[in-house]
Formats: sequence, C-alpha cells, structure tokens
Amino acid sequence: MPGYPKSIEKLISELQKLPGIGKRSAERIALDMLRRDKEESFTLAGSIRDVFSSVKECRLCHAFSDGDICEICSSQTRDRDIICVVEEPKEVYSIEATSDYNGLYHVLKGRISPLDGIGPEDLTVRQLLERIKKGKFKEIILATNSDIDGEATSVYLAEEIKPLKVKLTRIAFGLPVGGLLDYVDKLTISKALEGRREI
Amino acid sequence: MPGYPKSIEKLISELQKLPGIGKRSAERIALDMLRRDKEESFTLAGSIRDVFSSVKECRLCHAFSDGDICEICSSQTRDRDIICVVEEPKEVYSIEATSDYNGLYHVLKGRISPLDGIGPEDLTVRQLLERIKKGKFKEIILATNSDIDGEATSVYLAEEIKPLKVKLTRIAFGLPVGGLLDYVDKLTISKALEGRREI
Repeated sequence: MPGYPKSIEKLISELQKLPGIGKRSAERIALDMLRRDKEESFTLAGSIRDVFSSVKECRLCHAFSDGDICEICSSQTRDRDIICVVEEPKEVYSIEATSDYNGLYHVLKGRISPLDGIGPEDLTVRQLLERIKKGKFKEIILATNSDIDGEATSVYLAEEIKPLKVKLTRIAFGLPVGGLLDYVDKLTISKALEGRREI
Repeated sequence: MPGYPKSIEKLISELQKLPGIGKRSAERIALDMLRRDKEESFTLAGSIRDVFSSVKECRLCHAFSDGDICEICSSQTRDRDIICVVEEPKEVYSIEATSDYNGLYHVLKGRISPLDGIGPEDLTVRQLLERIKKGKFKEIILATNSDIDGEATSVYLAEEIKPLKVKLTRIAFGLPVGGLLDYVDKLTISKALEGRREI
C-alpha cells in the first residue's frame, strides 16, 4: 500500500511525539496544515523556535519568565512571605489558574528520584534553602506531587527546611471534587481518611 | 493573574489553530516542548517547513506526491483502468487504508459550492474529463462526500462524464458498520433504505 509522501510521513511521526497526539490526530494535523495557508504553518514553526530563544528561567523562582526575574517574583501585589514549592514550571500555571494563591513560587525543576539517579543536587534545592535563609517567610507550602517520588521529595525538603524555623505545610490529598469513592484508587481513599477534618 | 511568558502564550495560540487541539491540549503541548530536548522541537519546526517545500502535487491525479507523478499513478501493479474521484488529497489515504481499492485516483481539490463561489472551473474537473477522454477506463467511481455540496458535485460530474460512455458508479451510503438505527440521523436511514439490496 503506497503511503504518504516522505515529508508528510516525517511530519506525522514528529507530531506523534507531542503529548496526547496519537497517529490519527497527527495525520489529521499534518494533512490539515497542507490545506491551510502556508504562512500560518510557518508562523507555528517560528513560534516553536522562538519559545526556546525567548523563554528564560526566573533567577529567583526558576519558573518560565520573559525576563531575568518573572512577573510573579517582581510583583508588589503578591504575598512575598509565602513560597509554594512545585516540581515543574508548568505546575505554577496550574496553581495560578485557581486564583486561590497569591504568594511566590519555587520551582525545583524535577523531583528526587534515586532510581533515575536524580538527587537534591540536581534540583534547585540549595537555592530554595538559601532563599528561605535570606528572606523572611511566614510559610513554605510543599506542593510536590502525591506519587512516590513527589512524596519522597517532600519528605527530604521537610527535613532540610525544619531547622530553619519556618512554618512548613503540605498541600492536602484526598478525594477530588466530584470524585466518587467507587472510582477512586485505594491510596487516595487512605489519604482522604487520614486527612479527615472535624466538621 | 500573571499568565505565561509572551512567547509561550504565542505558541499556545498558534497550536490552538490546529484541528482537534483545544486550549488545554495546546498548553500541555507547549509546556511539554519546553521540558523536552530543544533539538526535538526544532526537528518538528523543520518538518513543518519541509512539508511545504517537499510535497508536490501529482501532475496526473493531483494528490500529494514526492515527485512529479505520485507513487500510485506510476505504479504498474495498480488497476490502471479505474479512477476513484475524491474531493481532497487526504481522502486518498482514507481509501488506501482500507486496502480494498487498487485503482487510480483523481483529486478534485475541493467541491462545487455555489454559496462559497466555487464552481467546476476552480476544481480539477477539466483535467478529469481530459484523463477520461484520453485513457481507456472501464469505471469511474464518484467518492465525493454525502453532504449537500459533495452530492451536488457528484451530480454535476455525472452529467459531464455520462456522454463519455464510461461506467460510472457512486460509493454507497447507508448505516455505518456498528451504527445503531437509534443513533443515526434520518438522512442516513433514508439513504440506507434507498440503497437496500436483495439478500
């Protein structure tokens, strides 16, 4: 069976590497590009290149930034005495989307994972500890994920931060809103029970 | 609420123009690109550009092609006396995927649509008629879509092709395999009734 011309085949296989894009979607996108205005697709190609040259890492919190210091770190309307510690830059946006948090962030740029050979020295742990020592913070929130590596990272950080005499909290784990006990895994139910609060 | 750095924002909005990519998927793809190796994303950007410079249009059938004449038109193992007429180049691949057709194709590069000001002269209708006149074909299959414009295009083509004394067929419309009468629209049921065959 004759397939796509080689350059279309190549584009489809590259598109398939994107998260959430299967073979069918990749084919649809590639063939749609060829139908559309060439300039539009060139703009996309340009944006992909631009993002790597333009996006910087904030010198303070290590999140994505337009400049040397990100918008959040340089804002004067944020609570500058709380730091929320997350694993990845993208998690900053997940929390920002809730509009429920108005403090600062610290991006670890990964998680401690002995099996992958990733230790604290590969992350921005040292920088976090220095920030806490130098500044006057009233709370550090650990918002690493709830899986094994995320939990281990949180435990490690807790041990390092506790001697610095600052209030340390961990985000809550439990039933997701709208989640049914029936459909939720055992570990989540255990966490939900463990974290129960008096009403 | 501070948003993404500008170049990420731009990339997200460009990605959202792709078919089937909503805001969430676009965000996930953009942020994932920044996590991955820069080279991988540059390869994708390059593939997008390449596809426009490399993909040609087959001089005979007007499908996508690596060279002047596509693989199907130049193959000696295909049935060279049947033409299947489709609207768009991508539809060639949908039919090829079935492995049930071994003839040639003719891509109209659109459909007749008076409301959009698209007439037969904007399509490759003239080229199709010339191919039929010049060649020795035993069958022309009209595989334009089953919507109003596709149907109108098929009716128009039938009138033009009939005087050329060649067997002319239209692909069948009816219940999709696995489709339930309950869930299928009235028009499809009408077509399924109309196209009923003795068993």
